[in-house]
Amino acid sequence: MQAARQRQARLTKPPGALGQLETLSVRLAGVFGTPRPDPQGVAVIVAAGDHGVAAEGVSAFPQAVTAAMVGNFLLSTPAGPGGAAVNALARSVGAQVYVLDAGVAAELPDHPALIRAAVRPGSRNLRRESAMTREETVQLILAGAAAARRAIDAGADLLVPGEMGIANTTAASALTARLLNLEAGQVTGRGTGVDDATLSHKTRVVTDALARNGSRADDPLGALADLGGYEIAAMLGMMLQAAALRRAVIVDGFVEGSAALVGVALAPELRGFLFAAGLCAETGHRAQLAALKLEPLFELGLRLGEGSGGVLAAPILKAAAATLREMLTFEEAGVPGGGE
Amino acid sequence: MQAARQRQARLTKPPGALGQLETLSVRLAGVFGTPRPDPQGVAVIVAAGDHGVAAEGVSAFPQAVTAAMVGNFLLSTPAGPGGAAVNALARSVGAQVYVLDAGVAAELPDHPALIRAAVRPGSRNLRRESAMTREETVQLILAGAAAARRAIDAGADLLVPGEMGIANTTAASALTARLLNLEAGQVTGRGTGVDDATLSHKTRVVTDALARNGSRADDPLGALADLGGYEIAAMLGMMLQAAALRRAVIVDGFVEGSAALVGVALAPELRGFLFAAGLCAETGHRAQLAALKLEPLFELGLRLGEGSGGVLAAPILKAAAATLREMLTFEEAGVPGGGE
Repeated sequence: MQAARQRQARLTKPPGALGQLETLSVRLAGVFGTPRPDPQGVAVIVAAGDHGVAAEGVSAFPQAVTAAMVGNFLLSTPAGPGGAAVNALARSVGAQVYVLDAGVAAELPDHPALIRAAVRPGSRNLRRESAMTREETVQLILAGAAAARRAIDAGADLLVPGEMGIANTTAASALTARLLNLEAGQVTGRGTGVDDATLSHKTRVVTDALARNGSRADDPLGALADLGGYEIAAMLGMMLQAAALRRAVIVDGFVEGSAALVGVALAPELRGFLFAAGLCAETGHRAQLAALKLEPLFELGLRLGEGSGGVLAAPILKAAAATLREMLTFEEAGVPGGGE
Repeated sequence: MQAARQRQARLTKPPGALGQLETLSVRLAGVFGTPRPDPQGVAVIVAAGDHGVAAEGVSAFPQAVTAAMVGNFLLSTPAGPGGAAVNALARSVGAQVYVLDAGVAAELPDHPALIRAAVRPGSRNLRRESAMTREETVQLILAGAAAARRAIDAGADLLVPGEMGIANTTAASALTARLLNLEAGQVTGRGTGVDDATLSHKTRVVTDALARNGSRADDPLGALADLGGYEIAAMLGMMLQAAALRRAVIVDGFVEGSAALVGVALAPELRGFLFAAGLCAETGHRAQLAALKLEPLFELGLRLGEGSGGVLAAPILKAAAATLREMLTFEEAGVPGGGE
C-alpha cells in the first residue's frame, strides 16, 4: 500500500484530483499485494433463506416470494439466465451469478448455478427464540466459504455476497442493534417498503427479540445465531473465505452489512478486504458503515438487496485499480508540473 | 417513456427499490425511443484548448501542461494508447477515446485519434477582452459536432464530452456566473488545486471579466464567445449533435457543465439527452446541476476533468438500461406480490 501511495502521488493529475478513487486504488493494492492491482473477475453469490419471523407480518411480501425469486434468479430468459435485477446488472457488468440455498422454505428444482446448503427450511422465529443453533450457524458459514472458493476458483477477484429472504431486514436490524448497542428504532427500516403501521410493528418485533436477552454483543457468533439468519451466516463465510484468499469483498446493503459487522467483530483484519457499495436507503445502513469505517461509493436510493448495489459498484472498483495500474507518472509521460 | 414507466412498475422488485436507476432507465428509454433501451458503445472526446487568461496566473500548472497532456492522451503505453486517467478509465469500461485540438498553444504531432480543429493557438485573455469571436465560436461548435458524428458513426450510444485546458475553470466560472446571474465568488473554485491566495486572485479575475459587460445572460452564444473557450464551444457542439442523433450525453464536471448551460439556454430540448456523472469537487458544479435539473450519480471528490467522471458513469447508465430491458415482470417470472 505504501508503494501504491507513492506511485499514486506521481501520476499525471493534480494531487488528489481522482478523489475517493485514489484511496480505493491504494486499498485494492493492499488486498492484492501489488502496487498495480488488476482485479478482473466479478462474482455475486446470492444466498437465499427464509425467516421464521416472517410469521409476525413484518414484510410487505409473502414468504413464498423467497422461493419464487430464487426461481427467477435461475430462469432462462431471452437475455440470458435470470430475470431479476441482479441478473440484468450482472450481465451488464460481466459478473458471474451463483445462487446458494441457505434454507428456503420450499422445494427448489436442480440447476447448475444452484448451490444447496440448507439445513432447515427457514430459521426459527427470532421474536420468540433463537433463530438458529450455533451448530447450524457454523454449517452455513462453512457453506458460504465453500461457495466463495468455487467462485474464486472460477476467476472471481471481486466477490459480492448477496441475499434474498423475506423478513431478513428484521433479522439484520436485530443483529445490528445488538452488535452496535443501538435501540431497535435506530436501525429498523421499511425493508421492501412497509407502511407506517407495519414499520412500527416491525420495530416492536425487533425490540422483543432484543429483550429476550438470548445473546450478548461481545459474542458475535452467538448474536448471529440468536438474531440472524441462514443467508447472513452464509455471507459471513463468503467474506471470511474471500479475505483469506486475498480477494476484495463488495458489501452491498443492510443485510450484507450485518454479516460484515459479525465478521469484523470476529476478525478485525477482515475490514481491510471489505469495500462498501452504495449507501442503501435502509435506516440502519449508515450506522453500519460508520462502524465498519467504510465510505459508500454512491447514494442512488437502492433498497433491493440481491447484491444488486454490489454488482453496480464493481466497475468503479475496477476503474480505480486501472488508474493506479495503467496511468503514467509525470516523468514517464514527460508532463511538466509534477512538483520536480 | 410512458411505456417504459409502465414496464418498470411491473418488474420483479418492490416498487422504487432500484431508486435512481429507475428514473435513469426511463430517461434512457426516452432518448433511444424504446422501452427497452440498449446503449452499448461509449466514447469520450477530449477537447483541448488553451486560454489567454492563463497569463493572469489563475492555475497551479503552467500552460505547457495542456499540450503535454494531449501528448499523454495519445502516447503508446504498455497498457494501450494513453497514459492519462481518462485513458485508464476508458480501457476499464470499454470506451473509445478521441482527442480534439480545439486550440492548443503548441504544435501537436499527427496521430490517428487526434482531430484537428484549432482556429487560433488559445483564446484571448477574457479578463481584458472577449475570449473568442462569434465566428470562431461557431466554427468550434461545428467541429465538436463533426467529432461527435464520427464517434457516433463508430458506434457510440453514450457520448462523454471531456476537456483539457489550463485555466479553463476560470472561463467556466465566468460563463456560469453570467448565465446563472451569480457572483464570481459563488462559482469560482480551486480548479487543479490552487491555494487560498490564488483562489482569491482567480475570483478577482472572474469579477473583472464579468465587469467588462462584454455579453448578456440572454445571449448564450454571445456569453460563450465572451467568457468561454474553444474547447467549451466544441463540447457544446458535441452535445447538440448527439441529441440530434438521439444519443445520450454524459455531462462530466464543471467545465462540461458550463457548455451544457449554454446548450440548454439555446435549445431547452437538449436537457432530455443530458445525464450528470458525479458531483465534482469544483465550487460551482452544484449550482450548474440545479439549473440543469440533473441528479449526480456519485460524489467521489473527482476534480480532474478530461471527461474522467463521465467515463466512470457510463457503466451505471448501461446497468440502469439493462434492468429495464432485461428484467422479467412479476407475471413473466411467476413471482407473487406484484399487486395483482
